[in-house]
Amino acid sequence: MGKKWEIEKNDCERLVGFNVRKVSVIGAAYTKFGEHWEKSFRELAVEAGVKALENAGVEGKDIQALYGASMASGTFIGQEHVGALLADQMGLNPIPAIRCEAACASGGVAFRQAYLAVASGAYDIVAVGGVEKMTDVSVEEAATALGGAGDQEWELFYGATFPSIYALMARKYLHDFNAKEEDFAAVAVKNHYNGARNPLAQYQKEITIEEVMNSGYIATPLKLLDCSPITDGAAVAILCASELAKKYSDLPIEILASAQASDTLALASRHCLTELHATKIAAREAFKQAKLEPKNVDVVEVHDCFTNAEVMAIEDIGFFEKGKGAKATSDGATALNAQISVNTSGGLKSCGHPVAATGIKQVCEIVEQLRGGAKQRQVSNAEIGMTHNVGGSGATAVIHLFKRGD
Amino acid sequence: MGKKWEIEKNDCERLVGFNVRKVSVIGAAYTKFGEHWEKSFRELAVEAGVKALENAGVEGKDIQALYGASMASGTFIGQEHVGALLADQMGLNPIPAIRCEAACASGGVAFRQAYLAVASGAYDIVAVGGVEKMTDVSVEEAATALGGAGDQEWELFYGATFPSIYALMARKYLHDFNAKEEDFAAVAVKNHYNGARNPLAQYQKEITIEEVMNSGYIATPLKLLDCSPITDGAAVAILCASELAKKYSDLPIEILASAQASDTLALASRHCLTELHATKIAAREAFKQAKLEPKNVDVVEVHDCFTNAEVMAIEDIGFFEKGKGAKATSDGATALNAQISVNTSGGLKSCGHPVAATGIKQVCEIVEQLRGGAKQRQVSNAEIGMTHNVGGSGATAVIHLFKRGD
Repeated sequence: MGKKWEIEKNDCERLVGFNVRKVSVIGAAYTKFGEHWEKSFRELAVEAGVKALENAGVEGKDIQALYGASMASGTFIGQEHVGALLADQMGLNPIPAIRCEAACASGGVAFRQAYLAVASGAYDIVAVGGVEKMTDVSVEEAATALGGAGDQEWELFYGATFPSIYALMARKYLHDFNAKEEDFAAVAVKNHYNGARNPLAQYQKEITIEEVMNSGYIATPLKLLDCSPITDGAAVAILCASELAKKYSDLPIEILASAQASDTLALASRHCLTELHATKIAAREAFKQAKLEPKNVDVVEVHDCFTNAEVMAIEDIGFFEKGKGAKATSDGATALNAQISVNTSGGLKSCGHPVAATGIKQVCEIVEQLRGGAKQRQVSNAEIGMTHNVGGSGATAVIHLFKRGD
Repeated sequence: MGKKWEIEKNDCERLVGFNVRKVSVIGAAYTKFGEHWEKSFRELAVEAGVKALENAGVEGKDIQALYGASMASGTFIGQEHVGALLADQMGLNPIPAIRCEAACASGGVAFRQAYLAVASGAYDIVAVGGVEKMTDVSVEEAATALGGAGDQEWELFYGATFPSIYALMARKYLHDFNAKEEDFAAVAVKNHYNGARNPLAQYQKEITIEEVMNSGYIATPLKLLDCSPITDGAAVAILCASELAKKYSDLPIEILASAQASDTLALASRHCLTELHATKIAAREAFKQAKLEPKNVDVVEVHDCFTNAEVMAIEDIGFFEKGKGAKATSDGATALNAQISVNTSGGLKSCGHPVAATGIKQVCEIVEQLRGGAKQRQVSNAEIGMTHNVGGSGATAVIHLFKRGD
């Protein structure tokens, strides 16, 4: 690993000193994730939007700007111009509305733009929503659309869809760290355990290591139950200047840090296949902004599009040393109320992965945990929460840190 | 026209007082617009990026965040995740990169997000680029992709592509204001006159009223030469905190105002077919921010996706009374160095319309005009410039005002 790949400088550092004012989440909600053949893209978005407004205790007229996220609405449903569509459907005209896209991190980057807009003082209250309607096309069409998250010219064009890209990383991990496929399977088992306790999850069903190991190979060594599913769903969060948050919510959740980093789209250009460099940079930056360390985090939603992605994430963020995350998961260290509670919502694996909604759904889960309302999957005394959203195979990583209000 | 459709309140007003600090454009450049069968999406983006960095006198390492714009890269070239792609291709990793989309206003809204990021103090120098590669698909596929800028469920699904949507507005205008098709044709003639003087324009060729009138009907009353073309191209601008701008550029161009508004996607939901309500709101807001009036503007790039769109724009912004814009154009009031110089670049009509690049290309033209470098198409003593970028049939409008540096 040459010096040039080390984290030497961080262009995001400018952000550390910028916070004009603090920002809180005053409401967040999402639709049931799953196959919604009876609901359209816009209906899902409006459903989540209404739930979030109610959750926040605000009305549409209070919202001053809208950040929408969708990865591939053009391919999935023939609709672009999604920001204005959502403003229109939610009755929010004429406020400025914009769509943000960063593949599977679309929700996370939209959340970050919304955060910046409020932190800067430009707006007091903004809405940010992610929505994806993926089941109106065939699985083959969906796989091709999702392939657009990687490098079209150097990966997708040659047939490299996402399971195969993550499979390369999984194989290298197994080789380098003497891990077992069963360790990856443990991620799926743990996330399905949590998802079985989340009434909005796509698959509310516990599974066993044996079931994962016996599910067919999609791209060796990844099997069907190592992969997150194709899902319809929407999620919306309402952000508010912290100084005004108490006016609307008894339990505002403060945003302590917002960090984002980029890496190459193509895996072939990376120096290392067992880490996501952008996650490492964003995590370092986020902890610096919040003046916290990994050990301070009580509950985290990480981007487990494939089981090995969760293993890399918990290492790259710093919860476990590189190479130790798979074994730690097998040993139960990431289970509910264990060393660090990872993906209590069920994660992308069990809760489902409507691409652009995922980053906002992660925020919904953390807000619910920090408010103490997660019931059967509640983490005891959760005070600090984190979200980690990845675009493609790691060309974008976005991390936010949250704190329970006083 | 009922009271509820009047401009009563303006949710953007919050922005007026927010400017933490001023922001300037220190460099802007675009590729030749046209059919670039020999250049890819990413090659066009990099070409514009390198030109813009050179124009700004900065290096890649000075850029702290990247805002990319593309309307329908998923449909056109199978590539999403465009923010990270551009950061990757331009060697800007690991800075945060994001794609903004608002149909044909993608460039304008990305520019506005970049402006907000610098104004807020989050970053000192950011790049914003728009790119579209439209000629790799058939005209039918392109028309369908572009239809995603309107309401997919209520317009495109029933076969309403964009020429037909603007044709409805054109027909109503002709009826209500006793205007002639020749008046719309005068827009095309004027813009081709300007485009013939722009070495980067797609069609550097003057045309006559007769040629426009004899070109075939696409959607009555709009004829082929009333329509902007399908184009490949990219444009990039570099924004910098004004207090630091002089370090890089002898001629920084200050951004005086940034305003955006939304309207319904579907034409059927509008109260009026002869105006774009979002343009009116954004214009009012922009002039308020800058403490200027329409008469102060020396040069403006408006969104002339169809000739009647330019007529509506110059009325909605306030250069002419409603219903008087068509005749004013016929009378030459919008020609180079006339009452108000409109679309000196050639506009979308003659310069070409690579969708997401257009909003940034408009900025490039205004910067060049305010720097006094537009040569054959230079507006004398241009001091105040404006850009007006529209998404779809007006569901998004973005307006920026610029001032020549001292």
